[in-house]
Formats: sequence, C-alpha cells, structure tokens
Amino acid sequence: MDHATEVLLQLFAILLAAKAGNEIFRRLGQPTVVGEILGGVVAGPALLGVYEVNAETALFAEIGVVLLLFQVGLETRLHDLLRVGGTALAVGVLGVIGPFAAGFLAAELAGGDLSLAIFLAAALTATSVGITSNVLRDLGALSTRSGRIILGAAVIDDVLAIMILSVASGVAAGSFAIGNVAALLVVAVLFIGVVVIGGTRILRRRRSLLTDPEFADTPLLPGMIVMLGLAALASFIGLAAIIGAFLAGMVVGESSERHALEAEVAPVAAFFTPFFFGFIGAQVDIAGLANPELLLLLAGITALAVVSKFAGAFLGALREGRARAILVGWGMVPRGEVGIVVAGLGLSAGAIDSDIYSVVVGMAIITTLIVPPLLPRMVRAAETASDEADPDSE
Amino acid sequence: MDHATEVLLQLFAILLAAKAGNEIFRRLGQPTVVGEILGGVVAGPALLGVYEVNAETALFAEIGVVLLLFQVGLETRLHDLLRVGGTALAVGVLGVIGPFAAGFLAAELAGGDLSLAIFLAAALTATSVGITSNVLRDLGALSTRSGRIILGAAVIDDVLAIMILSVASGVAAGSFAIGNVAALLVVAVLFIGVVVIGGTRILRRRRSLLTDPEFADTPLLPGMIVMLGLAALASFIGLAAIIGAFLAGMVVGESSERHALEAEVAPVAAFFTPFFFGFIGAQVDIAGLANPELLLLLAGITALAVVSKFAGAFLGALREGRARAILVGWGMVPRGEVGIVVAGLGLSAGAIDSDIYSVVVGMAIITTLIVPPLLPRMVRAAETASDEADPDSE
Repeated sequence: MDHATEVLLQLFAILLAAKAGNEIFRRLGQPTVVGEILGGVVAGPALLGVYEVNAETALFAEIGVVLLLFQVGLETRLHDLLRVGGTALAVGVLGVIGPFAAGFLAAELAGGDLSLAIFLAAALTATSVGITSNVLRDLGALSTRSGRIILGAAVIDDVLAIMILSVASGVAAGSFAIGNVAALLVVAVLFIGVVVIGGTRILRRRRSLLTDPEFADTPLLPGMIVMLGLAALASFIGLAAIIGAFLAGMVVGESSERHALEAEVAPVAAFFTPFFFGFIGAQVDIAGLANPELLLLLAGITALAVVSKFAGAFLGALREGRARAILVGWGMVPRGEVGIVVAGLGLSAGAIDSDIYSVVVGMAIITTLIVPPLLPRMVRAAETASDEADPDSE
Repeated sequence: MDHATEVLLQLFAILLAAKAGNEIFRRLGQPTVVGEILGGVVAGPALLGVYEVNAETALFAEIGVVLLLFQVGLETRLHDLLRVGGTALAVGVLGVIGPFAAGFLAAELAGGDLSLAIFLAAALTATSVGITSNVLRDLGALSTRSGRIILGAAVIDDVLAIMILSVASGVAAGSFAIGNVAALLVVAVLFIGVVVIGGTRILRRRRSLLTDPEFADTPLLPGMIVMLGLAALASFIGLAAIIGAFLAGMVVGESSERHALEAEVAPVAAFFTPFFFGFIGAQVDIAGLANPELLLLLAGITALAVVSKFAGAFLGALREGRARAILVGWGMVPRGEVGIVVAGLGLSAGAIDSDIYSVVVGMAIITTLIVPPLLPRMVRAAETASDEADPDSE
C-alpha cells in the first residue's frame, strides 16, 4: 500500500472510531468526548493498530484543536474576559505553582536529578483547555462567569508554562539564563496585548473587514487566514498554537460577520475535531505501561497532578464562591495534548526516559478522561449558587 | 523554528497566496482558479520559497481535490450519468488513445527506449477532472449534458489510465504480465459497479441512513466517513482517490439529507480547495526548465498533449454536435495533479530522468492553466446550440 493510500485509510479509521465511540457514549448518556478519545485508543497502536501517529494525522489533530479554540474565541468578547481578569490571573498563577511545586518536590524526594525534576514538573503544569472548553460549549456554559475564568486562566497558564519549559530546556541543555526567560515573558505578553488590543481596535473601526475583499463571498476564508497566521505566530514565539487561534477568534469575533462566520466554521471544526480527540486516545501506550511498578507510579503521578492543579486553581477562584471554585478547579485539570507535547520534549532532550514518558502521557490522558463526566453537575451547581450571589452572571 | 510551526506557517502562506491570486484575477475578470494556482507559483519554491511541498501540505491538497470531487458527485445523479454513457465511453476511450499514441510515437521517433516511451505516454494520457469540474460548477454547468459527459468520461479515463500505468510500471520493472492488467480492469470495474449500484440501492431503501446514528446531528460526519472510506479504497485498488470520492458523493447524494449535506460540505471544501490549487502551482520548477532546449521540448510536448487529448475527446463527443464536442474536448485537456503523479512514478521507477520530469510537470500545469479562460464561452456556445438541437438538455 503506498503512503498516500495509507494516510487516507488512517484518516478514515480515526474518524470512524471516534464517531463510533461518540455513538456508544451518547447512547449510554456519557460525555461524547470521552467516547471519541476511547475510540482513538481502540483504533490506535494500543489495540487494533489501524493507525499510527504520523506527521499527517498529527497535523489533522492539531488543526482540530486550533479550530476548537478559534470557535471558543469567536464566542468570547474581550471585555467579558477582562471583567474576570483578577480571578483568572489568580487561578492561572496558583494553578501553575501548585502542580509545579508538587512535581518538583516529588521528583527530588524520589532522588531524580534536577533536569528530570524540572521537566516532570513542567509536564504536570500545563493545562489543556481544549477538552474543558469543548464540554462547556456543548453545555452552553462558555459565557458564564466560570467559563470565562477558565478561558482567561488558560491563557495565563500557557504564558507561565512556556517560561517553565524554557527554564527546563535550558537546565537540560546546561545553558540556563534568567534573561532568556524574562525576554520570553515580555514577548509573550506583548504578542497577546498587541493582538488583542490592536486586533479588536482594527475590527471595531471596520467591522466589514472580513468580507471587504472581492474573493470573500463569505467571511470564512479571511477568518481562516487570520486563524492560521496567529496560530503560526503564537507557535513561533513558543506559545501554544491554540492560544493564537483563541486570540484570533476573539479578534475576528468583533466583525459584523461574526454569526455568519460561526455558522461556516462549525462544519469545518466538526470535521476536524474528532481527529484531535482520536489522536489523544491513540497516544495511549498500554505495552509501555505493562509493569506493576510503572502502573503504581502512574497512579501516584496522576493523583498528584489532579490534586495539585485542582487545589491551586480552586484557591485562586475561591473569592467567586465555593461552587464556582470547584468548577474552575476541576475544569483546569486536563493536561491533554499539552502534557504529551512537554513529555515529548523532555524525552528528546534526554531529561526523562521512555518509562517516565509513558507515565506522563498516561497521566495526561487520564486527567483528560476523568474531567468531562463531572462537569455538567458542577456547571449546574455553580450557576445555581451564582444566581443567588451574583446578578452579573448570564 | 520547529516543524509544527513551519507547517502552520506554510498552510497560512498557501492560503493567503492562493486567495490573493484569486482576488487579483477576480478584479481582472479572469478565472479565479488560475489566480489561485499562480498564487501557489509565487509562494512556492519557484519564487518566494515560503513553502516547500511536504507530506502535510500534500495531504491538505489531496483532501482539497477529494472534497471537490465529492461535491461534484453530490450534484450528479447516476441515471443522468448513465443517460450520457455511450458518449462518455467514446470520449474516455478516444481521449486516452489519442494522447497515448501521440506520446508513444513521439518518444520512439526521438529514439527513447520502450519504458521512457510508455511512461511519457502514460503521463500525457490521464485527465485531471478537478479543474474543469470546479469551473463548470462555478458556471452552474455541471448538470448540462456536456458536464455529465465530461464527468463520465473522466471515470472511464481513470480506469484506462491505471491499466496503462500498470503496463508502464511492469515494463520499467521488466515484469510485464497481461494477466495483471486484465485483473486490474476487472477489479476497477467491479469496484465502480458495486459502489454505484449497491450504494445507491442501500440509500434509496433507507434515505435517512446518514442521520440515523445518534451522533449524527447533521449528515456531515457520516458523509465524510463514506467519502474518506471510498477514497481510500479507490486509492488502494490503484484508482485515483478522487474517483472514489466522486462515487461516494453520487451515492450519498441519494440521501434525503442531500441538501443539508451540500450546505455543510461547502465551507469544508472552501477551506481545503485553495490548498489544492496552490499546491499545483508550487510544483512549477522554473530553475529545472532554465534551458532553451528543455523549454522547446516543453512547448512541443504541451502542444502534443493539448492537440491529441482534444482531438480524441472531440471525436468521441462529435455525435452530440460540434459546439458540445468542442466543450468536452477542451474540458478534458487539463492533466493537473494526475500528470504530476504519473511523472513522479516514472521518475522513481527510473524510466524518465529529472529533465523530462520537469517538462512533464510543466506540461501538466500549462494544460491546467489554459483551460479555464475559454470554458465560459464554450459552455454558452454548447448550451445555445443544444437548445435548438436537443430538448433533453437542462
């Protein structure tokens, strides 16, 4: 079979498996996103082996989560995000400090060297906002105060995560310099500030900008150009591409064509996102974990990852009331593809070995799978509580 | 820059370049598809070098043309295609014999060996129906009698092309066997027959099949699953993936959800197709052709390719009247990505050298660029003529 055929077959297999998982979980009344991830586990190397992770399927997965965050951005207005800015900052910062400290201490106590400790801590740190925002979107809860806190905190989380990752890479390469880390912070904050403030200004002045070109019969392609451009730029700076896509969505969401764009992006995103969920599932490495010691380690690290992230984010959001703090804390738990990427960097830098890599990937996937089932009831609890406490929420 | 960033940047660059080309050609009143291809020339290695052809961008291009033909299939009904079956068969067969004979004789007269002659002939033979069907779609002319003849002939053309390619590969490898070629014909015809007849039967019996699954809030994802599955299967057999996608479109077009599906596929295809057109442009190898002799050869081979394909297809369609025969003949001229693929196979089989490869790729792109500008007036002429001659046409 030639390579082009193989790739088509793999795309077919992932899409079919993810949607079969969706079907089963929907019939069971369970979160469909978990079904799609498990579909990826079944089709992937862990079980059937119908598809392997390769450059092409990885790209489809990445564009899937980029489109997901672009959609979320379209539904998010800057002033709404700024209104929760203080809490989001606290959640982002405490939600990073908690897992980083926990991971670092645990690795040091276990006798690991500095570069292992710092990479493990970095992998425990970064939240993947794709899964939570997808579930919140399905529940219609993105525009609640809790939803906005999670989105804002995810942006801050990612800025801190790239700084930690830069420290980790520097230590592993033996060339750590505090100046580089500070420069990274400046660039990241500048990028976000310029895009968000400059971009929304331009679109507010000229709301028809997306459909002004002759080729733009609809706002779709200008929107996709902005999305890919800002995703590439964010990735170039070192931020996650999805943060760029989220900002792009927020900016073009100021356009007068926002609703037409949302309607057109929906099928494109619906086509791509199953590749993202299926791809996460396909990373499961059952063979690599077939060892009681590693399974125990996986359980320990996963517990550490869940508790430390939940505790940090919960504390950060506590001023919003207990119910909201629980929702925000839990919503920040998934590590998803971000944890997998960080673990991969640690593996290729030689800071962590393939056993620890398998464990971290397993942790990333478990934290991602356990979150969606509890979210609906947490959203209800947070909204009921806030109806009494806070007339501002929607 | 890491690879993921690079790929995002390349996707951004192709999309931007293709749409900028579209914009310029639209303002000039010229065919936008030519503008998109030239956008790819500018962004590609020939000029700016912003993107190189790699596995990921090639996949986006392939999914682009797969979606294009799926859309065309959705708008094509089997019985309409069968009504033009006789003419389509004649156009397909004569349109293959003409260029094959011309290419083979020319190579033999020039003193080339057998495997060069047969590969060059194969590369001259295969029509790429993507460009023509895209232009006809824009003109609303897919459902005219001429449009259907072109589509039917393209399917037959592809069946004959894979047989020729199998002969060519066999001769180049010194293991030619007539039995293999015959087996290929049987498999290809069986595949097409079973898919079209079996598929349309299943969907006619259960027209709601696409939205029967619980996960299918809309028919989009079931449609995409069928599309990818049949594209992969066609490719596995040796047919072009786009032929599988075209058949898939025809089959699911029997669904009661056809119009909803068309509306949802439109933005997905609009997102992907610029990558296809831009990708074709990016194949242009100006440096490889910077040689007066090769340019002369390019002119000669291109003229041969145009005249022989036009003459064969024109003769096949002549029973439909002169105006239609001209439209059909001209519509079959583009070799596009199919010619490029065949040339690549010849290169890797050692049958043709890199000079001839550049020439064949140049021929494929030129035949693709010259067709769209003349199509609108040919469509008008064919339809005016047929209004008088044939009450059956739409």
